[in-house]
This record gives sequence, structure tokens and C-alpha cells, in this order.
Amino acid sequence: MTTSSIASPDVDAEHEQNKTPVSFLGPFCTYSHQATLLAFPDTSKWVLEPTSTIKEVFDRVQSGAAPYGVVPFENSTHGVVTFTLDGLADRAGEYPDICVCGEIYLDVHHFLLGRRPPSSSPESEQRSSGRGGEENPKGVPLASLSHIRRVYSHPQAFGQTARFQAKYLQPLGIEFIDVSSTSRAAQLAAADPKGESAAIASELAGREAGLDVLARWVEDREDNTTRFFVIRRKETTEGGYPPPEEEGKRYKSLVSFTVPHRQPGALANVLDCFRRRELNLTSINSLPSLVAPFQYLFFVEFEGGREDDHEGRISGVLEDLEKVAERWRWLGSWRRKR
Amino acid sequence: MTTSSIASPDVDAEHEQNKTPVSFLGPFCTYSHQATLLAFPDTSKWVLEPTSTIKEVFDRVQSGAAPYGVVPFENSTHGVVTFTLDGLADRAGEYPDICVCGEIYLDVHHFLLGRRPPSSSPESEQRSSGRGGEENPKGVPLASLSHIRRVYSHPQAFGQTARFQAKYLQPLGIEFIDVSSTSRAAQLAAADPKGESAAIASELAGREAGLDVLARWVEDREDNTTRFFVIRRKETTEGGYPPPEEEGKRYKSLVSFTVPHRQPGALANVLDCFRRRELNLTSINSLPSLVAPFQYLFFVEFEGGREDDHEGRISGVLEDLEKVAERWRWLGSWRRKR
Repeated sequence: MTTSSIASPDVDAEHEQNKTPVSFLGPFCTYSHQATLLAFPDTSKWVLEPTSTIKEVFDRVQSGAAPYGVVPFENSTHGVVTFTLDGLADRAGEYPDICVCGEIYLDVHHFLLGRRPPSSSPESEQRSSGRGGEENPKGVPLASLSHIRRVYSHPQAFGQTARFQAKYLQPLGIEFIDVSSTSRAAQLAAADPKGESAAIASELAGREAGLDVLARWVEDREDNTTRFFVIRRKETTEGGYPPPEEEGKRYKSLVSFTVPHRQPGALANVLDCFRRRELNLTSINSLPSLVAPFQYLFFVEFEGGREDDHEGRISGVLEDLEKVAERWRWLGSWRRKR
Repeated sequence: MTTSSIASPDVDAEHEQNKTPVSFLGPFCTYSHQATLLAFPDTSKWVLEPTSTIKEVFDRVQSGAAPYGVVPFENSTHGVVTFTLDGLADRAGEYPDICVCGEIYLDVHHFLLGRRPPSSSPESEQRSSGRGGEENPKGVPLASLSHIRRVYSHPQAFGQTARFQAKYLQPLGIEFIDVSSTSRAAQLAAADPKGESAAIASELAGREAGLDVLARWVEDREDNTTRFFVIRRKETTEGGYPPPEEEGKRYKSLVSFTVPHRQPGALANVLDCFRRRELNLTSINSLPSLVAPFQYLFFVEFEGGREDDHEGRISGVLEDLEKVAERWRWLGSWRRKR
């Protein structure tokens, strides 16, 4: 991925009209932007449109303004992204046509970005220029952090870097400030004229903001991966995503459902349907149903898809669901990437 | 609840030493603070200590620095609070002794707080003085909002007020800024000398910050309730929570467990244990297990407790769990409030 493909393109508007819009949670240079580029890399074909909220991605896809949208679904350390679950739950009936048509895995590496202290020796100085590797150890500060008074980041990124914070930042009495994106965090750190602010964000966001790398790969776990969903309106084929040549023929599917209230075993009855068909569950999540407080809408993701349902297991489980769930909804199937 | 019981007390430190500390997610005047006061109202007995993160509440309770802690668990509109689930999951083995010993339900009402426009007529002017009722309609602006440029709030509060935002704030092109608490949001709005900033926060936080009420009860649903857990170290009885005279003898319990990886039906097998014992589930949640990416640790909450297990159903289900779960952990039982 090159820097030129990331930067907000200064383009001819008329030329852009021939491209297919893809909506994603902006601003540019966030992890969401990187994930969107992985699935929609051809900038001559797609125009990537940042939104300010996940809800806006759902709004634009439902309205048809963007045939496709990319939303973060879950992180391997910190769990599901509630705002995306909220859109898929569609408890207000705003998104009747939205389904999932793809997934993207992005390995996430967080950097502590800011200004190096004025006293740091020139030979140890390193800009966030992509230089790194052996000379640039992971997870430990590359400079004194004693001048840092506050650190900006997104709550998800804070949640994924707890150990680094506990070891190197909390003992300094640093203030932690939640902001709406890691890109914004980098911008806020860059805007501090005193250089006392830092951000936890991507290397790319730090480079765009002109910040120094104060520590690299500060995430708690090396296998810190975020999974994104590509969403579209049912039946949309505009732009031809996913490309037919894409490898992999195995599928995953997603359904949501509610169960009869206060019936012991109601959820077990539904999960039994999948067990009897030997469909392996790959995730389960829940949100309040909003029908009554603290009743739940469940999401079950499982291996298999309508596209390769040669043994009729998928159609069978949907017939079973019809009998034991209170209500249920098909949310799509897609080619699995992992 | 009086204002004097809310304000940070200016107290004699020696006197405070005789009180039992209760840790909660601060700062003062947040919904967490209100919930903590509901469970620990006697200020002659308890000293309420704000922390800056949910993790710190777990840290202080585990270390014994505070015998009790109060953490938000789930909201009836927006779902589970991931940071609390993270503490209960204890995936890093930091909280071996923590269990849940109580629950608190707090009906949450959000207010849009800021400065009224300079041109607003005196007869329509209303301070956030508790005046309200019929003359102060719910969910609609009480003044023009055209002077507002940005709104601060906590992500959970934004998530619970989406309809009000869509109807009254988004059409004005207002910027939404995530901050770490609703109290902080009110303080930031109050600190704007131009009066162009507003906050979505509690009426109490607005009053403390000296802000005007621009709209009241702006939550999407009238039954917007947050449930909190009281946590303690196992066997702690210091200060005698819950009080013996407390009403209600019905219990709820919480367990966490993992299931054998990639075995179809493994989760259904575990839930079957509860179904066979006719134990009604009251919530189910999951987090990545961290043993491998995207494998899950599950949380099941159910009706009944070890304290009233006359029929042996609880002890029975725990024996069953031992057979079908990969590993599991008892996270406590407590008197149910709803």
C-alpha cells in the first residue's frame, strides 16, 4: 500500500462520477480506511467516501448512495464493535435491505506518536519515516516520555494497549482522552504547540500528521486483528464486488433472531438447530432487543453459505429456525477469508 | 438525592479513615456516581472513590484497596459495556478473587446542555434548576440550537440518543466529539467562552457545570436503564454490603466459560445444561478468549443463586459444566433487583 493511494485524492469530480462509491468510517488514514483499501484496491474503479459515524455507512448503503460499505465488526483482543452490531440489529427498521457480502481481516499495529523531547540526542532520533525493523524495538518507548501530559486515542485502541499504558504511561500520571478516531487523535497530538500530547494510532496516521514515533507495536497481543464486514443492499451487483477471480470457495453466514421471552432453554433450542445440522458456529453476539428492557437479539455466525449449500444444511437450519425462534433474519453469506 | 450528597466532599481525612471505601468510575456527577449512591447511600459509613477507568475499579477491588466497586454492566438500549466484560473475563489472570455481589438499576435520562442563544426571549428562558414537568417537554429543543457547533458526550450516551441527534443535531452540521465521561462533556461545554458547545449528559452534571438545559430526556427510549454490578473480593464482608434488611430473596448468578474449539454444537451443549435444570438465562455475552484469535469466552447469567439452591439445581449445573465446558469460572450470585 503506497502513501499516494491513502491520501485524500485531489481529483477531477467528473472523473469520479464514473467510479462506484464505497462508504467507510473515516477520516482517511484510519484502520477502517486501510481495511477498505484491502477490499477495494483499484482506485480507477472505486471512490472511497469517508463518513463520520458507522451509522452513516449503513445510511448510505441503505439509501443506495453507496452500493458498498465497510464497517469494523470485531477485534481479536477487545471484542465486538457495538455500533456495527447496532446497525445489523436494525431495531428501528431503518435498514431492511442491508446484508453482509464480504469480510476483511486487518492486522492492527498501534504506535505511540508525539514529539520527541527537546533534549533527545540526535543519533537516537527517528522520524516515523518507515525506518524501523531491528533498530526499532517493539512495545518499548524509543525516547523519554516524561514530557507527555496527555494521550489521545479511540476507546478501542486504548482497550487494545492496556499493558503498555499500565507499564509506561500510567506511572507518569498521564491523562487519557477518548476521541472519535485514531486519525483525529494523531491530529490533536500534532496540534499541541507544547509537544506535550501524544496519540495511540497507526503509523500511517502519525506520518500524515508529521509526528515522531515514540513507541511502535504497543498492542497487548501480536495477533491483534480487526475483522471488517463489507455490506451492501440485497441483490446489488454494481461494480462487481467481490471479484469473480477471488480465491476461496468456503463461506460464512450470519443470522439474527429473538427467542420467546423467559422460556428456559429458548436460546439452547435455537442453537440446537445448528448442532443437529453440524454447522459450526464462528461467533455469537447479543444486543438488547428493545422489545422489552434486557431481552436480547442474538447474532449467530456459522460456517457455510447459501451459495454452496449442496447438502441442504443451510436451508434446513433456516426451516428449523422458523419453528423455534420468535423472529429471525438472514443477514447474508460471503466467502470466508480466514 | 440531594446536591450536597453528590458534591465532592471537603472532609476531614482522619474521619474518612473510619469509612469503608467504594471504588466507582468517576468523575463525580456521572451516572456511575448516581448508581453508586443508590447502593451505598450512607455517607457516614462509605467513602466513594472515583477512578478514571473501569479497569482501575477492578484493580482497587482486587488489591483490597477498596472492598467494593461499582461498574456499569449493560444498558437497555445500547448493550453491554465491553470494559466491564473485559474485567470479568480476566483473560490476563489479574483478578482471580473478584466476584459480583450485587446489581443496581439506574433509569438514565440524558439532557442536551449548553448555553441558550443570546437572542432567546426571557420568558422562555429556563435554567437547569429542576423546574420542569409539563412546561418542559421531553425530547424537543427548548431553544434554538443554531448557535451550537459541537456536542460532547460519552460514546454510550451518543449511542442512546441517536434519534434526537438525527432529528435536531445532524441537520445543523454539528460536530460530535467522544469524550471519556458525560461529566467531562458538561465541563468542556461550560469551558467554551463562545457558548457554541453543548453536551449530552445528566441534568446533575449540567447543574454542576452551570449549563442551561437545551433539551431534556433526549434518550431514544423512555425505558433507558443502565444496570451496574457491585463487585468485591470473594469472602469480603467488610462494611456489611448488602445490608441484611434488604428486600428480595430471589437471586441471579454469573458464570464464564470456554468451549472446545471448532466442535460443532459445543456452545449448544453447555446451554443444554441450563435447559435441563430449567434455569432461565437472563443474559449471554461473549468476548474473544485470547487463547486464539476469534475464539470466545462466554458469559451466562441465570436466575437462581448458591444461597437459595434448595433443589440443588445450581450445584447440579456446575457439575454438568465441569463435563462439557473447556474451562469455567463462578463469578458470583446476588439478590436480584428486577
